[in-house]
Amino acid sequence: MRTRIVFLLSFTFLTGVPAFAEEPIVEDELRATAQSLFQPIPTAEEVIAARKVSKDQIQLGQWLFFEPRLSSSQIITCNTCHSVGTGGADNIPTSIGHGWQAGPRNSPTVLNAVFNVAQFWDGRADDLAAQAKGPVQASVEMNNTPGKVETALKSIPEYGELFRKAFPGQDEPVTFDNMARALEAFEVTLVTPNSRFDRFLKGESSLDAQEMAGLDLFINKGCVSCHGGQNIGGEGYFPFGVVEKPGGNILPAGDKGRFAVTETATDEYVFRAGPLRNIALTAPYFHSGQVWDLEQAVAIMGVSQLGEELNDTEVKAITAFLRTLTGEQPQVLYPTLPPSTQDTPRPIQPASRPG
Amino acid sequence: MRTRIVFLLSFTFLTGVPAFAEEPIVEDELRATAQSLFQPIPTAEEVIAARKVSKDQIQLGQWLFFEPRLSSSQIITCNTCHSVGTGGADNIPTSIGHGWQAGPRNSPTVLNAVFNVAQFWDGRADDLAAQAKGPVQASVEMNNTPGKVETALKSIPEYGELFRKAFPGQDEPVTFDNMARALEAFEVTLVTPNSRFDRFLKGESSLDAQEMAGLDLFINKGCVSCHGGQNIGGEGYFPFGVVEKPGGNILPAGDKGRFAVTETATDEYVFRAGPLRNIALTAPYFHSGQVWDLEQAVAIMGVSQLGEELNDTEVKAITAFLRTLTGEQPQVLYPTLPPSTQDTPRPIQPASRPG
Repeated sequence: MRTRIVFLLSFTFLTGVPAFAEEPIVEDELRATAQSLFQPIPTAEEVIAARKVSKDQIQLGQWLFFEPRLSSSQIITCNTCHSVGTGGADNIPTSIGHGWQAGPRNSPTVLNAVFNVAQFWDGRADDLAAQAKGPVQASVEMNNTPGKVETALKSIPEYGELFRKAFPGQDEPVTFDNMARALEAFEVTLVTPNSRFDRFLKGESSLDAQEMAGLDLFINKGCVSCHGGQNIGGEGYFPFGVVEKPGGNILPAGDKGRFAVTETATDEYVFRAGPLRNIALTAPYFHSGQVWDLEQAVAIMGVSQLGEELNDTEVKAITAFLRTLTGEQPQVLYPTLPPSTQDTPRPIQPASRPG
Repeated sequence: MRTRIVFLLSFTFLTGVPAFAEEPIVEDELRATAQSLFQPIPTAEEVIAARKVSKDQIQLGQWLFFEPRLSSSQIITCNTCHSVGTGGADNIPTSIGHGWQAGPRNSPTVLNAVFNVAQFWDGRADDLAAQAKGPVQASVEMNNTPGKVETALKSIPEYGELFRKAFPGQDEPVTFDNMARALEAFEVTLVTPNSRFDRFLKGESSLDAQEMAGLDLFINKGCVSCHGGQNIGGEGYFPFGVVEKPGGNILPAGDKGRFAVTETATDEYVFRAGPLRNIALTAPYFHSGQVWDLEQAVAIMGVSQLGEELNDTEVKAITAFLRTLTGEQPQVLYPTLPPSTQDTPRPIQPASRPG
């Protein structure tokens, strides 16, 4: 089904001949088309049941998500770059990590990340558990090691207790692997159901005329060929600049995307299509984080991916549709973390520390 | 009353003659003495009623406490250094701020800070609202300016609405001053009632023999002369090293404490007595943050402030008492913050940012 749509729409933008005739939008017809291309975001309860994660795993993951002792400085948490209060991202061009180093790419949102085909902009982690291990060890992010993380967590009795509950029957449950599994368990709860678009999709409410026009354009111009499914993206890999490469500030030559993962020539400048859920909350845009205006991002996509200069009315309509993708944000209680002990590794301080 | 006790206890440690005879501890008598020296922490509801802060002010303050756009990098929040999940502090020697610079002093806890006589280690801010303006502007912390903060907050319509509700009747409520007032309103809710000590103080429960011995020592050795009242400290200014100065790693020569505020010779190396509520959660200790072990901190205080080498039994007993000062930690919902607009100032990125 997906393949067929992709081919159909590829045909559309390669030939410039619209596959669908332009005619007045009929809400029920648009909804029926949309239902064949997109799926709504389920509630956290539904995801928890489907994923079979336990309450103890979720609680442990919630502690760990806000746990500064996962970083060698003991001040950087998962939430630093993937804040549950700001759309699941940090909303700066590229993340700032250990030693105030800038990372190479814009922080992807953790919200609804469970629905992506794989994690990171280049999909180099198969799932959220694999993803969680990356930033902890990256020298420009948390700058830590699995061994030091395990030492820290083992030094705090309350963590031992919660790991045992979360992973019953294991001889030594406090491991880096289980840390990652627990983080995944918490992160699968970070979903944003009941966006205005999802309520439209389910027939519970309408969109306004501009939003429907935007959805219609999004489908018929071909955006949906990369941005479909549950996350309106995040389900496949595509070249950035399939028709025309954007400027080097937006697509820096040094970052060849998925090529670094597959080492396949056709994967140069290939990235996972950005998931567009809650996109209005997470400027700046693209892996380089250089575009702050959602309308500008839509226009760039038109030229680079569709080979088409969308006119102002079209850009505004598509943007209006994208704003309907903002769902109910997760309500997260800040966890009360247990204190360090004398066995907990000490934080790495800046060289310039006074005293 | 306080003055009389201070004098009495000053007499005690200067002469070495105990003002109180050593005799078996009688719980009711110890409680009665403690009740004359300490007051329990009230509930958040009681503080809110007493301080007359409105729900809208508290909600606005909660947004602002977790608001990264108060910092010029847009990644540092109040909670970065005063985390509600880790005893209201960051628990590293001295805080790390903008550009990965280390600040000069250990981050004081925000929990129960409303009960301190003044804010900062040197008391240079009269109240929490005055305090809040400091870190936002400090170049080693958030590195921002009042003007840029106001521009950012004014650029986000949801903030305009909430400021208007929090400060009704003002022509232009979105101001740096009102930001500080709202932060204060939220911070007064960050109190930790019902510690085991407070329940003992109120006659609701007992402490064990070691804890009571520690409390007895805390009173009779003279600790209480600086660490009394509601916050078990935080109520007055005292020289660090009144009897014997600790080593330069713990009391760095370059930081003369309150002298910088008053420029009075007798205020050299004078600091606000550390409030000891939740002290077991907030290692490392002292303004220099160089002591990780609470027992070691107690022993250092014995020598430097009381001129007495406390023996191991005494140190352990006092430490056991201090551990009863951990109260119920505030349960804070992570706020969902409104997105930036095209008028919001852009974050300052590291010079080394790629791309």
